[in-house]
Amino acid sequence: MGKSYSNVSMAIIRRLPKYYEYLKQLIDKNIDRISSKELSRMIGFTPSQIRQDLNKFGGFGQQGYGYNVEVLYGEIEKILGLNQSYSIVVVGAGSLGQGIVNHIDFENCGFDLKALFDIKYKFMGKKIKGAPIFYIDELQKFISENHIDIGVICMPEEFVQDTANKLIESGVSAIWNFSPIDLDAPEGVIVENMNLNNGLLTLSYFVSNSGKDQVK
Amino acid sequence: MGKSYSNVSMAIIRRLPKYYEYLKQLIDKNIDRISSKELSRMIGFTPSQIRQDLNKFGGFGQQGYGYNVEVLYGEIEKILGLNQSYSIVVVGAGSLGQGIVNHIDFENCGFDLKALFDIKYKFMGKKIKGAPIFYIDELQKFISENHIDIGVICMPEEFVQDTANKLIESGVSAIWNFSPIDLDAPEGVIVENMNLNNGLLTLSYFVSNSGKDQVK
Repeated sequence: MGKSYSNVSMAIIRRLPKYYEYLKQLIDKNIDRISSKELSRMIGFTPSQIRQDLNKFGGFGQQGYGYNVEVLYGEIEKILGLNQSYSIVVVGAGSLGQGIVNHIDFENCGFDLKALFDIKYKFMGKKIKGAPIFYIDELQKFISENHIDIGVICMPEEFVQDTANKLIESGVSAIWNFSPIDLDAPEGVIVENMNLNNGLLTLSYFVSNSGKDQVK
Repeated sequence: MGKSYSNVSMAIIRRLPKYYEYLKQLIDKNIDRISSKELSRMIGFTPSQIRQDLNKFGGFGQQGYGYNVEVLYGEIEKILGLNQSYSIVVVGAGSLGQGIVNHIDFENCGFDLKALFDIKYKFMGKKIKGAPIFYIDELQKFISENHIDIGVICMPEEFVQDTANKLIESGVSAIWNFSPIDLDAPEGVIVENMNLNNGLLTLSYFVSNSGKDQVK
């Protein structure tokens, strides 16, 4: 991908997977064009927000025609970087690591799960979704030798920063962090936090404030 | 909690757990007051954003003094509804459901995990973190009889909407949805989506655009 996108907010980026998902559904139904209004009814964003969002990336719509579904899907695929393949390792093969690996469709999202790592000997020699589990001491060597792009962290809090440091030193570009710890990472290394505890606290806010003022 | 908060954006609500987490750390270190500037250095939000955020909820700071840590923590706890207790069930006791239950500190967040439900007989009679696993057919009766507030959905896509309907009909106020399906829910029922696939796609965007324009 040669383009670069300036002036793109986090909010837009987080909406892109939603566009991608719904366009895929349209393709599966053999629908070849759609207006921002129809798209709005499906996704729930307003038509003007949809037009604004997609304009940021060059605007793929034509007035009176709408969007060509396949073209738009292909462009969003490129914007999301899904026309490339990324290699990934998961550190922590315990309950959460296994749950995530089993649940997420890495392959269909263009991610190549290469291995899992854990401290527990009982996991060694086992495989999850075809990926082998290795002992944690082999992490750095494996990453350097296999040009791993992304490390997923699913381990107890006390090991998280140390594991992140090892991932970064060995050359990953990004960390997907499922721990509640805020990681220190040098500029240029991407950290995407999936703090599940915070998700629960947000839910608590909504439940406790439901029936009061609507939150927009 | 008697107060209600208007004009509060989703962005602020999603920052509240972060404030809560860092204030807890300060309390653990016996620090009793803090300026927005110091808080900014810890959390990474700007001092003016911090002042604006906290002003939305009534403003707990005093010029020249800063914030009383314990008071602020207590207020955010109330805002998040953590001074109440919520009962919760998890539907899906497979790999992801077990991972989440083992990983999340329900108890310390004020959540009372009452039971898990699954379709597989092999799980029946087992417990996870002290909570029993029941057969899925008992879900609705259990929710009605035990006044369950929140249902967590951790199951294969094809059962998600049907499960959500059952949870809603039986009276839960909120659903924490770990599936990639967008749920239909009537007004008044809160749905908090944790779409892990979308997290992965966002990560793909960042990795593919790293080294290009910085995203703010």
